[in-house]
Amino acid sequence: MKYDFEQFQGQVRDLVERREAEQVREILDLMRIQDVAAIAMQLRDDDLPWVFAQLAPGRRVDVFSYLEPGYQYRLATRLPQAEAREILQRLVPDDLTALLEDLPKDEVRRLLRLLPYRTIRRALTLLGYPADSVGRLMSPLFVAVRPDWNISQALDYIRSQSEQDITVNMVFVTDEQDHLQGLIPLKHFVFGAPQDPMSSLKGLPMVSIHTDAPQVEAIRMMKHYDLEVLPVVDSENTLVGIVTIDDALDAAEEETTEDFHKMGSVGIGLSLRDAKPMLLYRKRIGWLLALVFINLIGGGIIAWFEETINALVVLVFFLPLVIASGGNAGAQAATLMVRALAIGDVQSRDWLKLWTKEFAVASALGVTMALAVSMLGYWRGGIAVAVVISIALVLIVVVGSLIGLLLPILLTRMRLDPASASVPLVTSIADVAGIIIYFTMAAALLNLPVHTV
Amino acid sequence: MKYDFEQFQGQVRDLVERREAEQVREILDLMRIQDVAAIAMQLRDDDLPWVFAQLAPGRRVDVFSYLEPGYQYRLATRLPQAEAREILQRLVPDDLTALLEDLPKDEVRRLLRLLPYRTIRRALTLLGYPADSVGRLMSPLFVAVRPDWNISQALDYIRSQSEQDITVNMVFVTDEQDHLQGLIPLKHFVFGAPQDPMSSLKGLPMVSIHTDAPQVEAIRMMKHYDLEVLPVVDSENTLVGIVTIDDALDAAEEETTEDFHKMGSVGIGLSLRDAKPMLLYRKRIGWLLALVFINLIGGGIIAWFEETINALVVLVFFLPLVIASGGNAGAQAATLMVRALAIGDVQSRDWLKLWTKEFAVASALGVTMALAVSMLGYWRGGIAVAVVISIALVLIVVVGSLIGLLLPILLTRMRLDPASASVPLVTSIADVAGIIIYFTMAAALLNLPVHTV
Repeated sequence: MKYDFEQFQGQVRDLVERREAEQVREILDLMRIQDVAAIAMQLRDDDLPWVFAQLAPGRRVDVFSYLEPGYQYRLATRLPQAEAREILQRLVPDDLTALLEDLPKDEVRRLLRLLPYRTIRRALTLLGYPADSVGRLMSPLFVAVRPDWNISQALDYIRSQSEQDITVNMVFVTDEQDHLQGLIPLKHFVFGAPQDPMSSLKGLPMVSIHTDAPQVEAIRMMKHYDLEVLPVVDSENTLVGIVTIDDALDAAEEETTEDFHKMGSVGIGLSLRDAKPMLLYRKRIGWLLALVFINLIGGGIIAWFEETINALVVLVFFLPLVIASGGNAGAQAATLMVRALAIGDVQSRDWLKLWTKEFAVASALGVTMALAVSMLGYWRGGIAVAVVISIALVLIVVVGSLIGLLLPILLTRMRLDPASASVPLVTSIADVAGIIIYFTMAAALLNLPVHTV
Repeated sequence: MKYDFEQFQGQVRDLVERREAEQVREILDLMRIQDVAAIAMQLRDDDLPWVFAQLAPGRRVDVFSYLEPGYQYRLATRLPQAEAREILQRLVPDDLTALLEDLPKDEVRRLLRLLPYRTIRRALTLLGYPADSVGRLMSPLFVAVRPDWNISQALDYIRSQSEQDITVNMVFVTDEQDHLQGLIPLKHFVFGAPQDPMSSLKGLPMVSIHTDAPQVEAIRMMKHYDLEVLPVVDSENTLVGIVTIDDALDAAEEETTEDFHKMGSVGIGLSLRDAKPMLLYRKRIGWLLALVFINLIGGGIIAWFEETINALVVLVFFLPLVIASGGNAGAQAATLMVRALAIGDVQSRDWLKLWTKEFAVASALGVTMALAVSMLGYWRGGIAVAVVISIALVLIVVVGSLIGLLLPILLTRMRLDPASASVPLVTSIADVAGIIIYFTMAAALLNLPVHTV
């Protein structure tokens, strides 16, 4: 039988509508927990607890852990208190931390009231690490064995730990003080004889990360070394947790989405679907207003050249072109730079080499565009206007490109996020530069009047 | 001892310079293969084969597999032919395919001459799948066991296969005709008694993907189900390969970079550092020229309103603002949409709901911006100009936002890539819309003359 998510989805919706408990139970049992969670998040708030009650008790925590924080909260507050408490307690600590981190303060308080002190303390320990640090991402549940055990002893211990669905693909070797000493993939245990000492097994070269390191660094290391699990240590090299590839992937996706949104000068979190209009408004208005003022500077410069325009109104015809061209070329350069910096393809110290290359590329781009437009310039305003618009275009494209290249590097140097050099910001700055270059060139080359105080 | 990449890097560079073979060998032995590859790619072309010769023979293929295609080619053509042949033959098939896929045709031909027929055929089989399909990404090396074996038989077989460094964290169950029947994580084998039938082990719910499915679908499935290995089947459900999480991650990163670059209207591949200026020029000029023509339309519209401008030159003062504001709001909306579509957060059928929400948000944004600017409008041009600029701004922001929202949806509907609705494209279209709205409003409300034919 083929596993068909869309079919299951339709059936479940139908059966939930008609409250057919028996049949819903049967279908849910066939489905993967992630798909059950996906369908649960499409249900109305009243249906959610009902469907949850139809799940086999052993799967409830797993399904719960795949719901997004908003749905987790809605469900937890709608379930009978005893059941909500049990589920929250059995959630792995990093999932509970993620839930608490994403909820508003008063909702956090409401949930914490459900939980025993021990669970709260464990979650708060993780929340004690800096935002976006590895400590927030790690799970404190892992399997560690002692170096002087033999394979059979180690396997017995691993078996005794594995009920709790702990990640065991990688086994960590620690001494009595929990200092990390080695990493052995579980598959290597399969190839040893039970009485052999563990030291006979091939371990991986040691690699670990500090709790306070940024999450992006953990993601980078896991990608670079092709790791599925990364051990996390404190300043004494004590093993305190692990980062698993699935959590790292989620964090990486969030990070990329953030960069993406910053590039478009919006700063909302992951879900456009769920974002309330008020949130969207708040996240967008700041940048838009800031850009208004940059654009008004452009207006001010045009006003300064009012007499130049009065003397030759055809100049205004090319205004949208000169304004946009620098911005477009700058947007391209900024996009390339921000992404290259994000994936570590270039470092900010490469700036001189990149600048030289960008200068050559932008000059070629500008000349090509000038050639394309010069005919039109000639037709609209004669040879003199054609010359002005051509020279101005080359200069504008070069300046715009260099702004797009430099702004992300500058931000990196100032230890700010280069993705804040958003396309709209680069575009607006390049716009203003374009206006200045255009009218200055026109006034100078065509001997037109400028503002007289 | 702490593992310090930067320190190793400095030492290796130094020792390579002085051709200290003995000491280079010692340091390389301490390093992870991925780091050796990273350092190798920073060397000059002459140093590369020399350092490679210092590597322990057992690590050469592994290090080679972590070099980028360009460096793999440079190294392969500089090594003694016999050694190059051995390395290419021992490369896992998907790595060889990736190399052949990324090289220019004549370099591919040169490499193929080194290889025996069997290796070539295997690589060509993978290359036979459509571009960006799962078939191109998969590795044909995996461990499959028969359902009627007991655990001890299965483990013996797995051991016999594991020399070749095959991924064995997941064991696949297939029948005599290689039809996929089940997935069992290797860790579950550790928990069974040797004489138990394999059916006593807990398997995972079946999940697989077709060779012709797009790679993004494989990535989506692995993220959704938290899989480290995904089985790939043909139309007869025959297991033909596996996708591993590290390959999926690399593909996902490339995909995201592509989306990123498209949003900035540049289409180069992964590496800005390595891209030649000519390539950068070619990838950027197309869009820039296309946008020039959209901007010239804006110029044409301004020319149409030449008499309106002559009658009230202060209108030009606000031109950069009205041009940019629609574009900026549109850029924000487009960024949100493109990313939301890419990660599956919204579907194109949600458009009506999104449209309504965007309309509300954009109206609020427009009103806020109008309030901010109206004072300046009053000061520069009196109450009438203030009213015109305010109303125009609200309309422009709303229209720009809806363009930014609709363009990605439209492209998706036409089965084109929504990321092609780049920020510069949306900006340019919104710019033109802004110019039309602004001057039409001004001419109508202020009773100014328009173009008279």
